[in-house]
Amino acid sequence: MKQSIQHVEAAYFQVPLSQPLSDAKHGVHTHFELITATVTLEDGTTGTGYTYTGGVGGKAIYHMIESDLKPHLLGQDATIVESIWDDMNWRVHYVARGGIASFAISAVDIALWDIRTKKAGLPLWKYLGGKEGKAKAYYGGIDLGFSLDELLDSIQKELDYGHTAFKIKLGQKTLAEDIARVKAVRELIGPEKTFMVDANYSWTVDQAIRAVSELEQYDIYWLEEPIIPDDYLGYAKIADKSRVGIAMGENLHTIYEHRYAMEIGKVSFIQPDASNIGGITGWMKVAAMAEGYNVPVCTHGMQELHVSLLAAIPHGSYLEVHSFPIDQYTLRPLVLEKGNAIAPDTPGIGVTFNWEKLEPYKLAL
Amino acid sequence: MKQSIQHVEAAYFQVPLSQPLSDAKHGVHTHFELITATVTLEDGTTGTGYTYTGGVGGKAIYHMIESDLKPHLLGQDATIVESIWDDMNWRVHYVARGGIASFAISAVDIALWDIRTKKAGLPLWKYLGGKEGKAKAYYGGIDLGFSLDELLDSIQKELDYGHTAFKIKLGQKTLAEDIARVKAVRELIGPEKTFMVDANYSWTVDQAIRAVSELEQYDIYWLEEPIIPDDYLGYAKIADKSRVGIAMGENLHTIYEHRYAMEIGKVSFIQPDASNIGGITGWMKVAAMAEGYNVPVCTHGMQELHVSLLAAIPHGSYLEVHSFPIDQYTLRPLVLEKGNAIAPDTPGIGVTFNWEKLEPYKLAL
Ligand SMILES: [Mg+2]
Ligand SMILES: [Mg+2]
Repeated sequence: MKQSIQHVEAAYFQVPLSQPLSDAKHGVHTHFELITATVTLEDGTTGTGYTYTGGVGGKAIYHMIESDLKPHLLGQDATIVESIWDDMNWRVHYVARGGIASFAISAVDIALWDIRTKKAGLPLWKYLGGKEGKAKAYYGGIDLGFSLDELLDSIQKELDYGHTAFKIKLGQKTLAEDIARVKAVRELIGPEKTFMVDANYSWTVDQAIRAVSELEQYDIYWLEEPIIPDDYLGYAKIADKSRVGIAMGENLHTIYEHRYAMEIGKVSFIQPDASNIGGITGWMKVAAMAEGYNVPVCTHGMQELHVSLLAAIPHGSYLEVHSFPIDQYTLRPLVLEKGNAIAPDTPGIGVTFNWEKLEPYKLAL
Repeated sequence: MKQSIQHVEAAYFQVPLSQPLSDAKHGVHTHFELITATVTLEDGTTGTGYTYTGGVGGKAIYHMIESDLKPHLLGQDATIVESIWDDMNWRVHYVARGGIASFAISAVDIALWDIRTKKAGLPLWKYLGGKEGKAKAYYGGIDLGFSLDELLDSIQKELDYGHTAFKIKLGQKTLAEDIARVKAVRELIGPEKTFMVDANYSWTVDQAIRAVSELEQYDIYWLEEPIIPDDYLGYAKIADKSRVGIAMGENLHTIYEHRYAMEIGKVSFIQPDASNIGGITGWMKVAAMAEGYNVPVCTHGMQELHVSLLAAIPHGSYLEVHSFPIDQYTLRPLVLEKGNAIAPDTPGIGVTFNWEKLEPYKLAL
């Protein structure tokens, strides 16, 4: 039976961060933008999807959902999610193939998956065929601006909280400073814990090659985004000389970009983000491709949703637990247990917003 | 002296087309969206830039200019256009690297070039070092939906108008139909005229290889976008088997994508569009790179502006004269002379809108 889409409603929120966070290339974050898309069927069923930004672009995303996607969605059969995904991509194609469109499509697609899995009476990870409902998790700090003391304090706090894997930002003025921070953190967490680093493309290819040769001795699990995400051949040059695995994906907004990261860029880990790769449909396409490339899949941010996706696939690696506190505004904050994140066990995507708590941050556009 | 930016104002127009136009992948166009950005300096100097779409995404572009770029531009020194371009790209980077952001940045960048060239008292093409102020032009039809008779009528009209080069759309239900249209058009224009075809990525790699083998006999100058723009390696597979040159670029929204089209995709012609590659700054970067790759540069749409860019570079090929009638709304419609388009000779970018004529199509957002 056709499940006709009767209504689509986007909403825009500016949510403050508890403290300003910074990395090498995106400057200082003081708030994040949350853009939700709620889809309502004729039978009254609703699903909510969402995307977010570091503070820029959210209004364009909202308006693309409202002006360009919504008119196309009304009356469509919500059951055929993958076809709708394809249609949305073609509808905005000329102004898309990444960028704002990928964020807008993500929010709508996630809403459709919320409906699909609610209708099926299954949690997302089980609907997708996952077995155990959990995923290895790591704490991803946005800590480039922290002093060394602040950095160590923040890691200690997360150690105490129970995390068993940690990522810090690199991209200080000199490589020596970066390495000093890496050394101090490795000493703090000890040799057993998993330790990743993220340069947010602040380096040239040569700087990155120099960096990996120093990072090796600290048993770094991966080096994330050493150089600009566009330079796949540059990634390959680094990978060819590195014994530390290279990771990227949070800035790749089409399945083709992910393909090139693996095929040409030779990355060891791929990190699709359902909030900017076209939602769950886009994320699962990348995951399927990564299986073919024999590349483990990690995630970027949005842990409250990604936990269910990583729990669903056979070649998942680590879930990033990001500092943007989206899950303070949901009814089920992320559950961690002995280094694993536990996926929600209720029908749907498992992310339900606390609209009352969000209300003060809503802007009428 | 610092030329401080005092004001930035975007405007949004929905301009009807005289007849519905269609191609293989973007459906039927009934109007185009025009988004202008007017920058005003403290000294009162103004410059106007613009971008356009086939009908989708324009509101997101408008809002990105107003919400994300404008706050960053106010107070900046308008003379340092290239640095502003770089700053704009980094400011929106997380939601960008193409898509809506490239269109929004284009409009602002073109406005800054309008100011820069007005201040210098030079027409754009001369400011950029061009010698002759003209460029070879071709008529680019959006005619996939035309019957064979309508197609031939439209080409005859443009022959009578004085065009010496013509492009038609391919992507009919069968290759045989496409080839019949190519044959008929070649017979109509005779063996001397230049003839291009554009499939708007409606084919698979294999279909494209089959098509070029049939197209060869009609002396086709280039085959444009046989397959999806994302598949650079697919382009290479076609180029490796084709004696017809392959062209692409209108859907590449970063300089890196253009690099991959040339380096990996092996295209014979590159077609950057200043309305979606980041304006004149982005276009000139692609042109410089193309010179290094020894690839001639063509353009897509926006002939009233592109004529000045092609006239400025040593390795320009053909200017597309597009069916979207933007220049019906400017004070100087494109001037054609013996197959050449003549660049405007007045200080500035040479495109001044007829705001009165546009007014009925303006939407307050
Ligand atoms: Mg990262
Ligand atoms: Mg074309």
